[in-house]
Amino acid sequence: MSLELLRTDAHSPSYFALTRGSGDRDADLVDFCIPCNPYFPTPEIFARLRGSLENILKYYPSDSDTITRELCTTFGLHPQTVAMGNGSTELITWIDHLLVRDSLAVPIPTFGRWTDQPLETGKRVHMFPLQESRNFHLDVEAYVRYIRERQSRVAVICNPNNPDGGYLPRREVIAMLDRLTDLDLVVVDESFIDFADAEPYTSVADEAAIRPNVIVLKSLGKNFGLHGVRFGYLVANPALAGKIKAALPKWNLNSFAEIVVFLLKDHQEEYRHSLQLAARDRRLMYEWLAALPGLTVFPSQGNFLLVKLPDGTDGVWLRDRLIADYGVYIRECGNKLGSSGQFLRLVVRPQPDVERLLDGLCALLYGASPTWPAATRQVGPRHARSLRSA
Amino acid sequence: MSLELLRTDAHSPSYFALTRGSGDRDADLVDFCIPCNPYFPTPEIFARLRGSLENILKYYPSDSDTITRELCTTFGLHPQTVAMGNGSTELITWIDHLLVRDSLAVPIPTFGRWTDQPLETGKRVHMFPLQESRNFHLDVEAYVRYIRERQSRVAVICNPNNPDGGYLPRREVIAMLDRLTDLDLVVVDESFIDFADAEPYTSVADEAAIRPNVIVLKSLGKNFGLHGVRFGYLVANPALAGKIKAALPKWNLNSFAEIVVFLLKDHQEEYRHSLQLAARDRRLMYEWLAALPGLTVFPSQGNFLLVKLPDGTDGVWLRDRLIADYGVYIRECGNKLGSSGQFLRLVVRPQPDVERLLDGLCALLYGASPTWPAATRQVGPRHARSLRSA
Repeated sequence: MSLELLRTDAHSPSYFALTRGSGDRDADLVDFCIPCNPYFPTPEIFARLRGSLENILKYYPSDSDTITRELCTTFGLHPQTVAMGNGSTELITWIDHLLVRDSLAVPIPTFGRWTDQPLETGKRVHMFPLQESRNFHLDVEAYVRYIRERQSRVAVICNPNNPDGGYLPRREVIAMLDRLTDLDLVVVDESFIDFADAEPYTSVADEAAIRPNVIVLKSLGKNFGLHGVRFGYLVANPALAGKIKAALPKWNLNSFAEIVVFLLKDHQEEYRHSLQLAARDRRLMYEWLAALPGLTVFPSQGNFLLVKLPDGTDGVWLRDRLIADYGVYIRECGNKLGSSGQFLRLVVRPQPDVERLLDGLCALLYGASPTWPAATRQVGPRHARSLRSA
Repeated sequence: MSLELLRTDAHSPSYFALTRGSGDRDADLVDFCIPCNPYFPTPEIFARLRGSLENILKYYPSDSDTITRELCTTFGLHPQTVAMGNGSTELITWIDHLLVRDSLAVPIPTFGRWTDQPLETGKRVHMFPLQESRNFHLDVEAYVRYIRERQSRVAVICNPNNPDGGYLPRREVIAMLDRLTDLDLVVVDESFIDFADAEPYTSVADEAAIRPNVIVLKSLGKNFGLHGVRFGYLVANPALAGKIKAALPKWNLNSFAEIVVFLLKDHQEEYRHSLQLAARDRRLMYEWLAALPGLTVFPSQGNFLLVKLPDGTDGVWLRDRLIADYGVYIRECGNKLGSSGQFLRLVVRPQPDVERLLDGLCALLYGASPTWPAATRQVGPRHARSLRSA
């Protein structure tokens, strides 16, 4: 594995780039960068996909209308209000091309495409800084004021936000939409909302379907733990959804996307269970990390945790050491607008993976032994507490 | 399997749509619609993909620059002259959005996106009819004259052409490019050119890289027998390629596309061998079909053959009967501009599949017994000859 890779690219290198041509060590790499759902798809689903692999790869998928109709049946959406894309990034690209005329406001830090895409096509991007001192919480009043001052024509929020996982309750999002009905467009990027459990009903997709200027964006890859597939969708009123749908390339979805969409209705129960497990892991990982001295962990409703390192600790150094010595791959936020290398975005993972991360963090940050006896492994939090009291 | 499906969609339904929820019979469906390479990927490659399936599906792919660099290393292309897309259709969509200003000329019949895409975005499409009496051969002189008369600003040719497989020698393509240097753009869609063996070197990609107004389009899914993956690329001068590349969505390629591109350099020999086998099958299938009384088969350099049915034979009826009684799925060209339901586009397939097709055709067209004894099966062409002499 080449550490050079980590330094040469603006964006994090992919898992494949990191493991390509490497030896046994990297085969065991634990990845805290890609916000996967580790509990879905189930082994049974993977077995079904494996059994049909040749047919899936060899034959054309159906066109996206066919796949969209099935998705809508499973999720109880109206097909005219939905457009499916080759990952939410394809939808962001077309939203920018078709609906963002001159300016767009977005709170930062946030998902990079919401700043970079409109900048690349020459739009003005008004970046509203979220305050670390307020746990990166989005103050709707202040954001609306900012939009008015800058005269932005399009506004975006990510809920939960990436990279901090900050969550805005549904009633507050709706209140914001009510305030911004005169804008060309308001986008609520709900790519991670399935992981939120702060209230029983979190999405505003139902509102988007009946409002004149709202698009809700959803990721399927993130929720279903299938980032390699590339699929996502948006919900908006039929005119708005239809405009995007008409512009998208035909056959923009691949055969894996089709197969998975048609499998979903038989695996809804397992999917809901996977989200419960992920929420449990998030609570546990939050507790363990928050117990480490000098680390700040921000409250999150996504499947990742934003962590601030102690002053003077360089995230790039830590990342390089963790991957070289512990086979743990983390993301530092030095390349994210509104963040810095002192911040890590750590994806929520099952307990054994977090223990390996803690091994590395404790050793590298506090000089504790990097190899605890296996018998004492499960005392992750206690180990951290003993460090704190040391 | 629902015959309704075949009637309700403008485009052919996908293999998945046809086989979804169907019984054992359809599992045995032989598909003459999807122009797959049946000899590639090899079983060994599929085994490698199957072994890595979970990682491929779970992790993000690299961005397209990384994947493009590798493709260029393998194929000896300059990365600045190449843009990779999520299937050639994505590239056609963006070519239309960015480079086709008001009008486009294209010979018909041809690949549907070259007429439908610009029509959908309000461009004038000048359709130059290829003559059945001339075997759908493209007369470059006449086409250039037509372009001048209509004052088209963009010209497209598919070489080999789809659905007839007609091939224009490299020197003639270059002569045409020389005549059209004043146009905004000339596109040579070489999606099927790897299957051509009419001369040692067939592509004009090298010309595209150094000319001011030429794009050569290449499919990877068609050549490599991986339609489900969705990947293709274009070659043009760095300014033109860069313009498309800058507009394409980031991460437009999925993880299977990445994995396959990185496997290619180790399997070039098998790939070349697969093309030889496909060319052999094409010759055989041509002979067998041409021996059937009343059928006209057009010379093809693609991996498909255009067949004209005897007068009075309805392609839709034949398609429905072949799929219901023989599990053979064919495409009739009734929905193709410049063609009709009297034409079939039959994908070149291995001998046993063609025998099953001949079984069905002989029975349905001539009333010959649909179940020859297995021992006489291999006399496909002789059987046809005996019919002709009958």
